[in-house]
Amino acid sequence: MRSNLEKSKCEQACDILNELGLDSWLVWVRETSQMVDPVLPLILSGDVVWQSALLFTRNGEKLAIVGNFDAGGIEVKNIYDRVIPYTQGIKEHLLAELNRIDPTKIGINFSTDDVAADGMTLGMHILLKSYLEGTPYGNRLVSAEGLVQRLRGRKTPEEINLVQKAVDITEEIFRKAEHFVKPNQTEIEIYKLFHNEMNNYGVTNAWNEDHNPAVDAGPNKEFGHAGPTDNKTKDSQLLHFDFGVRYKNYCSDIQRMFFFGHERDIPSEIQDAFEAVRDAIQAASEYIKPGRLGYEVDAIARDYVKDAGYEEYQHALGHQIGRHAHDGGVLLGPKWERYGDSILGSVEPGNLFTLELYVTTKNYGQVSLEEDIVITENGCRFLSHPQKKLICIV
Amino acid sequence: MRSNLEKSKCEQACDILNELGLDSWLVWVRETSQMVDPVLPLILSGDVVWQSALLFTRNGEKLAIVGNFDAGGIEVKNIYDRVIPYTQGIKEHLLAELNRIDPTKIGINFSTDDVAADGMTLGMHILLKSYLEGTPYGNRLVSAEGLVQRLRGRKTPEEINLVQKAVDITEEIFRKAEHFVKPNQTEIEIYKLFHNEMNNYGVTNAWNEDHNPAVDAGPNKEFGHAGPTDNKTKDSQLLHFDFGVRYKNYCSDIQRMFFFGHERDIPSEIQDAFEAVRDAIQAASEYIKPGRLGYEVDAIARDYVKDAGYEEYQHALGHQIGRHAHDGGVLLGPKWERYGDSILGSVEPGNLFTLELYVTTKNYGQVSLEEDIVITENGCRFLSHPQKKLICIV
Repeated sequence: MRSNLEKSKCEQACDILNELGLDSWLVWVRETSQMVDPVLPLILSGDVVWQSALLFTRNGEKLAIVGNFDAGGIEVKNIYDRVIPYTQGIKEHLLAELNRIDPTKIGINFSTDDVAADGMTLGMHILLKSYLEGTPYGNRLVSAEGLVQRLRGRKTPEEINLVQKAVDITEEIFRKAEHFVKPNQTEIEIYKLFHNEMNNYGVTNAWNEDHNPAVDAGPNKEFGHAGPTDNKTKDSQLLHFDFGVRYKNYCSDIQRMFFFGHERDIPSEIQDAFEAVRDAIQAASEYIKPGRLGYEVDAIARDYVKDAGYEEYQHALGHQIGRHAHDGGVLLGPKWERYGDSILGSVEPGNLFTLELYVTTKNYGQVSLEEDIVITENGCRFLSHPQKKLICIV
Repeated sequence: MRSNLEKSKCEQACDILNELGLDSWLVWVRETSQMVDPVLPLILSGDVVWQSALLFTRNGEKLAIVGNFDAGGIEVKNIYDRVIPYTQGIKEHLLAELNRIDPTKIGINFSTDDVAADGMTLGMHILLKSYLEGTPYGNRLVSAEGLVQRLRGRKTPEEINLVQKAVDITEEIFRKAEHFVKPNQTEIEIYKLFHNEMNNYGVTNAWNEDHNPAVDAGPNKEFGHAGPTDNKTKDSQLLHFDFGVRYKNYCSDIQRMFFFGHERDIPSEIQDAFEAVRDAIQAASEYIKPGRLGYEVDAIARDYVKDAGYEEYQHALGHQIGRHAHDGGVLLGPKWERYGDSILGSVEPGNLFTLELYVTTKNYGQVSLEEDIVITENGCRFLSHPQKKLICIV
């Protein structure tokens, strides 16, 4: 089943080559158990040890030139038209195939803005250039960023189903948490209860387990990527979660807010903040559709909370999810240096995004929510059930 | 406990800067949950999201310039002298620190030959060069390969203990396998029994779980990186394992040979092959010591099996182990194109290597063994108990 997914992504890659008018795409990797081009798992499950060239053409040809010990494991996956093994060196095999195909442009994986499209290392680039010396191909290397972003971003129905399942499990665990979360627990205790549930469901962490879930009790903890502490939950205070699971290699990423007390006792300061966050996400979800640019969508939510009198959130409104919780490609973010060009791209059908933001209250810390959506032909559909009101624990 | 290990590796890095006469080392990363510089986990547990600069000087200064949401999680680890958070962009902070330190050389992580020292992506290099434009520092970037190889290769006592523990667990599971492995089992059944034991011991895979352990029954399967199949174990035939576990982030990598039948019934063809492999490993272990070059050690074992009348093995004699089963640095291998310069380096005290090789019999397939060693001041010590004779299952 897994290898069908990869085969369909490889076929999608050849289609995108055509769409972009690019002749060929070269994924150039080695020792992927140590450092892996983020695009590789989409087109090949498992690892390669030696220098390997995965070569795709707009004619639909799919080749794998790999070390002899890697070849058998790749052949049985039945993804590539030809698996070409080598023993002492890859150079002559690579040159032979390039000479045969003679591409006028060869896309390779580098990008200043998108980590997911930046899978070639500097050393591997130097090596590739040295192998191509004396051929015309060294000067035909171009960035495959556009291809990788489309390939990664345009989820197939099978990929969307896997993320939906990850989201469903995340929400089930949150529902269970309504019963096991209590006042006077430490963040670490709650964190462990979440991990017990993850084991029950057979899912792993969507990001580093140190801070998944992030558990933030009370007003004095800045949300971020810090792990849970001995900090305790308290009556009349908030509790925040940022939680994602990985189900068959696909990830969810959801934030939820709990309040310790009866609904009638929620301070208006908290309720107002909650509604601002919830409604800013809702406004962005109503605006987003294919063709919208990343920064345009961010601005809808950002302006919403600023108009409501809050400081703007210090991050992007949304990132793509998929193989990773941060899946690269177009970002729904402001025009800040650190986001580079990733916020200039446009949203496409099949993209999966988070919508997330926080505002800061005067006395109760931050209020932050995060939902997961899929872009449809005309707008978006929520994969998660957007949090409508604070979850009250009494 | 974990952060002490990282702190001691950071201090080791500053010492190696001095030894190499290198002013500074810049580890330049982003979104490490997607693609991580292989050296990062040695000097920082957990992930960073935004562009991050970890900067080390020969004076022992250790700085982390990181995105605001990452800063808290790094500060609590107490590894770095200063953690400098930024919100919109890293450039001005990075330039301010470089201007203050004013290094004449800045080591960055790239290498054509060693994946473990090649952690900078091409896109991140382009970005770094653009940030350094108009400063003298863009032209002061040099490869930190020598530093990374020493840092990774020279295991601290704590690191050696962790690998020893991984080796001990691997051997315990092999001992249990003497009871649960039987004739007429499929490779997949045996694979699952190994995974049950891994769960019992709370260890994970040292490499991709698809082929860990590699389980190769009978004469018709080429050893390599293919996974277990429905192929069945048979009386009077061999069974081969390549198996490694990860214990607290440190790996083992061991190969063992089983024979189905009584010791007295081992065909001489198998026994001779086994002894050639075992004794070639022993010869290499007696030769290896600090100062020996990678290809010199490989040649001892390679000549041994060739002199015994076998074809030479089509891989390197040994690789380093540690955080990864293939841990980069000096390789004990022949002068083949695919190994580049990695086999020209010399062995150092504290290095952990595998010693592994196979020979091919005419009627019974391949015979392959692999042991794990640590380099001492004068030679080496085995971490594994070298396999002295075939494990006979009756």
